[in-house]
Amino acid sequence: MQDKLPIYNNKSLNSSWDKGNRIEYILNLCQELVSYKGRTSGISLATKILDEYQKLNQKDKASFFLMINQNFTPNVADISKDASVFLENSNLKNLNNLSVSVEGKRQELFRRMNMAIGGSEVLVFMRGDLLPLINHLPELKELDNDLIHLFRSWFNPGFLKLRKINWSTEASILEKFIANEKVHSIKDLSDIKKRLQNHKEFYAYFHPAIKIEPIIFVEVAYTKGIGKSVQEIINRNTKSNLLEFDSCMFYSINNCLVGLSRISLGNFLIKRVVQKIVVDKPNIKKFYTLSPVPGFAKWLLENENEYILGLISETEMKSISIVFENEFDIKKISNKVKSVILKLCAIYLINIKVKEKPINKVASFHLGNGAFVNDIFWNGDTSVNGLKSSFGIMVNYEYDLQKMDEYHESFFSKGKITISKKVEKILNQEKKIY
Amino acid sequence: MQDKLPIYNNKSLNSSWDKGNRIEYILNLCQELVSYKGRTSGISLATKILDEYQKLNQKDKASFFLMINQNFTPNVADISKDASVFLENSNLKNLNNLSVSVEGKRQELFRRMNMAIGGSEVLVFMRGDLLPLINHLPELKELDNDLIHLFRSWFNPGFLKLRKINWSTEASILEKFIANEKVHSIKDLSDIKKRLQNHKEFYAYFHPAIKIEPIIFVEVAYTKGIGKSVQEIINRNTKSNLLEFDSCMFYSINNCLVGLSRISLGNFLIKRVVQKIVVDKPNIKKFYTLSPVPGFAKWLLENENEYILGLISETEMKSISIVFENEFDIKKISNKVKSVILKLCAIYLINIKVKEKPINKVASFHLGNGAFVNDIFWNGDTSVNGLKSSFGIMVNYEYDLQKMDEYHESFFSKGKITISKKVEKILNQEKKIY
Amino acid sequence: MQDKLPIYNNKSLNSSWDKGNRIEYILNLCQELVSYKGRTSGISLATKILDEYQKLNQKDKASFFLMINQNFTPNVADISKDASVFLENSNLKNLNNLSVSVEGKRQELFRRMNMAIGGSEVLVFMRGDLLPLINHLPELKELDNDLIHLFRSWFNPGFLKLRKINWSTEASILEKFIANEKVHSIKDLSDIKKRLQNHKEFYAYFHPAIKIEPIIFVEVAYTKGIGKSVQEIINRNTKSNLLEFDSCMFYSINNCLVGLSRISLGNFLIKRVVQKIVVDKPNIKKFYTLSPVPGFAKWLLENENEYILGLISETEMKSISIVFENEFDIKKISNKVKSVILKLCAIYLINIKVKEKPINKVASFHLGNGAFVNDIFWNGDTSVNGLKSSFGIMVNYEYDLQKMDEYHESFFSKGKITISKKVEKILNQEKKIY
Amino acid sequence: MQDKLPIYNNKSLNSSWDKGNRIEYILNLCQELVSYKGRTSGISLATKILDEYQKLNQKDKASFFLMINQNFTPNVADISKDASVFLENSNLKNLNNLSVSVEGKRQELFRRMNMAIGGSEVLVFMRGDLLPLINHLPELKELDNDLIHLFRSWFNPGFLKLRKINWSTEASILEKFIANEKVHSIKDLSDIKKRLQNHKEFYAYFHPAIKIEPIIFVEVAYTKGIGKSVQEIINRNTKSNLLEFDSCMFYSINNCLVGLSRISLGNFLIKRVVQKIVVDKPNIKKFYTLSPVPGFAKWLLENENEYILGLISETEMKSISIVFENEFDIKKISNKVKSVILKLCAIYLINIKVKEKPINKVASFHLGNGAFVNDIFWNGDTSVNGLKSSFGIMVNYEYDLQKMDEYHESFFSKGKITISKKVEKILNQEKKIY
Repeated sequence: MQDKLPIYNNKSLNSSWDKGNRIEYILNLCQELVSYKGRTSGISLATKILDEYQKLNQKDKASFFLMINQNFTPNVADISKDASVFLENSNLKNLNNLSVSVEGKRQELFRRMNMAIGGSEVLVFMRGDLLPLINHLPELKELDNDLIHLFRSWFNPGFLKLRKINWSTEASILEKFIANEKVHSIKDLSDIKKRLQNHKEFYAYFHPAIKIEPIIFVEVAYTKGIGKSVQEIINRNTKSNLLEFDSCMFYSINNCLVGLSRISLGNFLIKRVVQKIVVDKPNIKKFYTLSPVPGFAKWLLENENEYILGLISETEMKSISIVFENEFDIKKISNKVKSVILKLCAIYLINIKVKEKPINKVASFHLGNGAFVNDIFWNGDTSVNGLKSSFGIMVNYEYDLQKMDEYHESFFSKGKITISKKVEKILNQEKKIY
Repeated sequence: MQDKLPIYNNKSLNSSWDKGNRIEYILNLCQELVSYKGRTSGISLATKILDEYQKLNQKDKASFFLMINQNFTPNVADISKDASVFLENSNLKNLNNLSVSVEGKRQELFRRMNMAIGGSEVLVFMRGDLLPLINHLPELKELDNDLIHLFRSWFNPGFLKLRKINWSTEASILEKFIANEKVHSIKDLSDIKKRLQNHKEFYAYFHPAIKIEPIIFVEVAYTKGIGKSVQEIINRNTKSNLLEFDSCMFYSINNCLVGLSRISLGNFLIKRVVQKIVVDKPNIKKFYTLSPVPGFAKWLLENENEYILGLISETEMKSISIVFENEFDIKKISNKVKSVILKLCAIYLINIKVKEKPINKVASFHLGNGAFVNDIFWNGDTSVNGLKSSFGIMVNYEYDLQKMDEYHESFFSKGKITISKKVEKILNQEKKIY
Repeated sequence: MQDKLPIYNNKSLNSSWDKGNRIEYILNLCQELVSYKGRTSGISLATKILDEYQKLNQKDKASFFLMINQNFTPNVADISKDASVFLENSNLKNLNNLSVSVEGKRQELFRRMNMAIGGSEVLVFMRGDLLPLINHLPELKELDNDLIHLFRSWFNPGFLKLRKINWSTEASILEKFIANEKVHSIKDLSDIKKRLQNHKEFYAYFHPAIKIEPIIFVEVAYTKGIGKSVQEIINRNTKSNLLEFDSCMFYSINNCLVGLSRISLGNFLIKRVVQKIVVDKPNIKKFYTLSPVPGFAKWLLENENEYILGLISETEMKSISIVFENEFDIKKISNKVKSVILKLCAIYLINIKVKEKPINKVASFHLGNGAFVNDIFWNGDTSVNGLKSSFGIMVNYEYDLQKMDEYHESFFSKGKITISKKVEKILNQEKKIY
Repeated sequence: MQDKLPIYNNKSLNSSWDKGNRIEYILNLCQELVSYKGRTSGISLATKILDEYQKLNQKDKASFFLMINQNFTPNVADISKDASVFLENSNLKNLNNLSVSVEGKRQELFRRMNMAIGGSEVLVFMRGDLLPLINHLPELKELDNDLIHLFRSWFNPGFLKLRKINWSTEASILEKFIANEKVHSIKDLSDIKKRLQNHKEFYAYFHPAIKIEPIIFVEVAYTKGIGKSVQEIINRNTKSNLLEFDSCMFYSINNCLVGLSRISLGNFLIKRVVQKIVVDKPNIKKFYTLSPVPGFAKWLLENENEYILGLISETEMKSISIVFENEFDIKKISNKVKSVILKLCAIYLINIKVKEKPINKVASFHLGNGAFVNDIFWNGDTSVNGLKSSFGIMVNYEYDLQKMDEYHESFFSKGKITISKKVEKILNQEKKIY
């Protein structure tokens, strides 16, 4: 907003502004683009702007965002005028005018940038550049809200194409999955081959306007009953017949584009993949996840709070810390302590909430999709990363096709978290160990 | 808007309302969809709504639109309240509140309907149902504006896929072109074969979310110099080598989906096709159209105005009318009269304007894309339809790759229409024929 | 064979030879090709020969074949010499020499012609040109035997690609089926659409070296129980769910390339299609044909033999002839006569044999594939063609997946024709109608 | 041949025969297959035989080959009888009989095995098993000749499909190239990526009946002028525009299937690739190879013959040997010695022949295709393998599109090897270094 509101720190702008006739040049192009009537030259303008943008260094990009934010923000004077007129006479014309001044011109600017061939792609990367700047330049949150609003339309799940990924997929696509697997990292193409063999595969969403990258993907393994260890699944190399299996484990889900964070597509992906597997592989009847518990170890070690201290002696607590500080020799943890940690993990997942939702984002994601907490496994992920984040514990969520809509609804409307008998038992066990 | 504004005629609603618990049921689903937090059940709700919608008859569809329009329109009381608060204190929070109340909930409702698999397709057909109702229920224009706003995002040219269409294209796709060619109609598949042979082809845009239909297509023929007759082009069957040709004639462009009218994609299509041909067929250097002049005959016959009466005697005028009323025996028109009609056609194309743009929509389209008027041909389209609408005259616009941006700009900024020397000569000829 | 054997009528050759330096030129190229050691120039030579061949008129083609046949035939003197040497000393070297002289050079010539890009295609058309000449120039049968020998290798079913054909198939492919359906003719593309809708489809074999044509195709309809009328199947337009059906009717099978006649692929095609349908559509359990009885009417009318005269009075026989000569008003045939005709048809199919196989080629084909005669239908094909060739009777053969290998074996080893109880009853009914 | 000729060592057969009822079982199946009239049961029989074959161990496979060879070999008594009859009366019928007995039944047996789905693939692997046995069981050469004869028909270049291979090719295909590059070995998928970037690519032939493997492939790099070092080409990572390049370097060509050795396809592959590049990349005008000289170092070091001793002193010769025995420190070779080695390499390539063709197989291959020797490079391949086989020397052959047919012809008809002026100079330099 231009008039009254000091939206951004002038210094941050000016410091980069001094160098930048280029920024001014881009700004002029943007103003021309927004004001332009013709659509054909719109393409040329949009193309120029996005080309210029990509040549900017990080600092200049910040200046660019601040400029855009300021110059195309809703104008307070205009809004005030239109609001007054509407209050006097609430007719349609006055409403439309107010509507126009309230929206400002940032969204229209981005919409028109998207006319460039390959525009969507650059805009996604643009948001990837924008996000880390918001911490220091919080006024840019407004700009991000505009992009989120547009991206929700543009990356509608109906526009996405689901592809099954296996060892016959193009190498150039496979390397994207290697680059973007953040939980159970993949070293190289030989390593990814192991995840695409012996009845393991990936499913990925692609967008027609993003040529070079998958949007999001999930890693899948078919199993007889529930698979309890990520390492076992990944390294499995016995040749089996698919018909021996009855279950599908989702053991990793990752986004590929930073610029699409908060454009939630994971829930759609899982639902589509379940639909597809039900049709393609009728013998697969059960759908589970083997999910990490990021943040659990940190929570356990940093919060010597009521939960923990009521269950565990300070001596035992220290023994855990020592394990944690000494290369995670998890075998040194006694069985008694193990069962307390499992109980604490159940508490962490189910009772520790922020804004009425589980503080653990993975739990929040799967429960929000309609899954329930089915089990908690010790030694589920014995990689360094797994031990570090959750003592190697993994959680097994189940997607029950018959009940997932019901669970989803009660989660959102009543905040109810559904858990299995097994997890109830873990949660209710009496286990003071001192 | 709910409070003061009598947006719709209550009678029209009530009459169908009486029958309709189904409408009420859909309305409830819509309200649930808009208010819902969870996205998973959003898909189910959206799917149900669109399924129900498709079962409605025409009358109930009208009721559905009126209900939607009314119930999710911006609320005047809310807007007024938020406007007053903003006028007192123009901070961001108050702006956001005002923004939400001003937008109302119709767009968000449609956005959420689009979460259903196949949703975009149904929404396009929904708009196809809506458009003819607006004449009698003008309040539905508001609803249409919301759809236009959304469709401009969703049918961004960057999301479209260009396909070359030839005789090796699926028969199921070819029949769509037959159904949608409105200018130079195609009888059947044998007839379309003639348009896809001997260096003729189509180019069409497809959208990833619209499986069943092309969006828009253009018919193309390669020629040596300018092709002057649509019939000659269509019926051409001499086998030539592509290398003998230097020009590309666009001789027909058609939309396939009523529900996408006013979502202008024709300009993008032509530009993309030109780009593609330049790369694929380097010997093709010139790009022309052979375009109809719909409305010219009507204008000529109905407007015995200054232009016409200054140029032509009443006797001659009658002779034209007689030809027109007697099965278009165009050969009966004398050469003298012919040249007057050509001159009048040039006047009609270039000087007769509405809102500063040519009244002739085809002219307005190509000039708006950056083409210029290169020539006007007698006997360009000798089909009944061609004779009826323009005495068989066709117009030749040229897309000059070097200058089209310049022409486009001067057309939009200064209203300037660029014409060739040849057309200038036609326009300036002294030709009173009495 | 050159020396002694008067393989061809010298006159027929000389008459066309006089005109033909071109033939001599091609012959030289052929001799060069056969003698050549280098493979690279082999491609050029082969290409030249095939290009030249295609420019020949029908008469010159005959001369070409006669020349080839004569010049590359096994040489009697060489064979005799090598045979004598072998008889003296039967070692490997002498066997190899005899083998070379016995084979002659025609096969190697054709093998080398096939090095040209697109060579296989031209050679298939070449055989298409050759076949009709054999009647008048029987010595060319030898040449044909060589081509058959080679084509059996080249058109091995393992090299063919099965494609499902439906309304989404390329129009350019669909028109090939129209051109090649010889039994139940297809008028145009609108007509073929009827055969590719409502759970009807085609399956076709393609060969990688024949770009432009399918090799052979079968027309398929899914039905509830046995479909008894071709017209009903073709014109069926009720929309059903595939799951309502349990049977697959093969109602037409056609070759597309004359040049591949006697390279039997129909049996492989049917077996592959059955395999595919069993996997793709598990609810389809039974596989039947609805097959014509070409030649039956002719046999019935022309052979007033023991079968017929024992069963039918001369008066009745005349009444059939009259129907036959008067536009096939089949309704005029009395029920009594009908049942006699059906019985005669069963006799014709099962008892009338040539070289221990049914004289009826369709019967011989399906029985040879392992099918059995399941039923015989009056009014199975009421088209003019159907009435003319078999009074509209069609035969229903069944492919029983469990037993077809057994039936196939007993057909070939013992000449046994398996028939159903129903057909047995038709065959055994006492029905003298006089 | 059964009667007189002791084709194989009975011991070798009997030793494995003792264990083998399985072999006997397969033999029975083979006899049934060859004698069978029906084609449908032919498929089943062929499938059974190939399935059984694949379960055999190496020893039993040898027994299988010996059995086949013996049992389906031409029968001496039959041949003798038919030969005698033919000598008495050389008519066509007697020729045909002789022809049948001369051919024996092995080819027909293999032809019928090929009716099994996937049969060609198994037969290729079968020949891969057969080849190494021939050294110890030379009688199997006969069997191999039959397979070669059939494979030449089945793997006709007209049946092969050319594919361009790049980083967007399926990973499962790329790993086949890694496994089969025998000259400039590829470590893993990261390593192959380097060969498919920056205007490098592969071209491969695939056969429709061999699903799992490419048949043969060539590695290609585009360059400005001639690339003189394989390592430079492979490791090149400057990003250039293709338009800067004018030349195409073929720097490696490899077969993938042992079972297809001696079915020469490399010449067709190179010719097709050249044709394709000429069309796709009109700026590429020159086609070269960068080829190894396998055997040169061995020849040089082992043959202290006239060539060498006339050019080089024994002392120098020893200095070369020393370098060779001491980890190939090529830099220790003096410039004088270098130029002698280059001259010796030219002599080796051009003058050292076996059966009138260059003893060096790479030279023989490219010269046979119509290339000429254009240059010889020191440091062309500095890998251990390159140094070991040819002191790192590589040869540059050129394919001159205008002249290759002429060179090919004179190579084959007159044994003429075409060389450039540069190579002539190397060959003619006076360079005694002692």
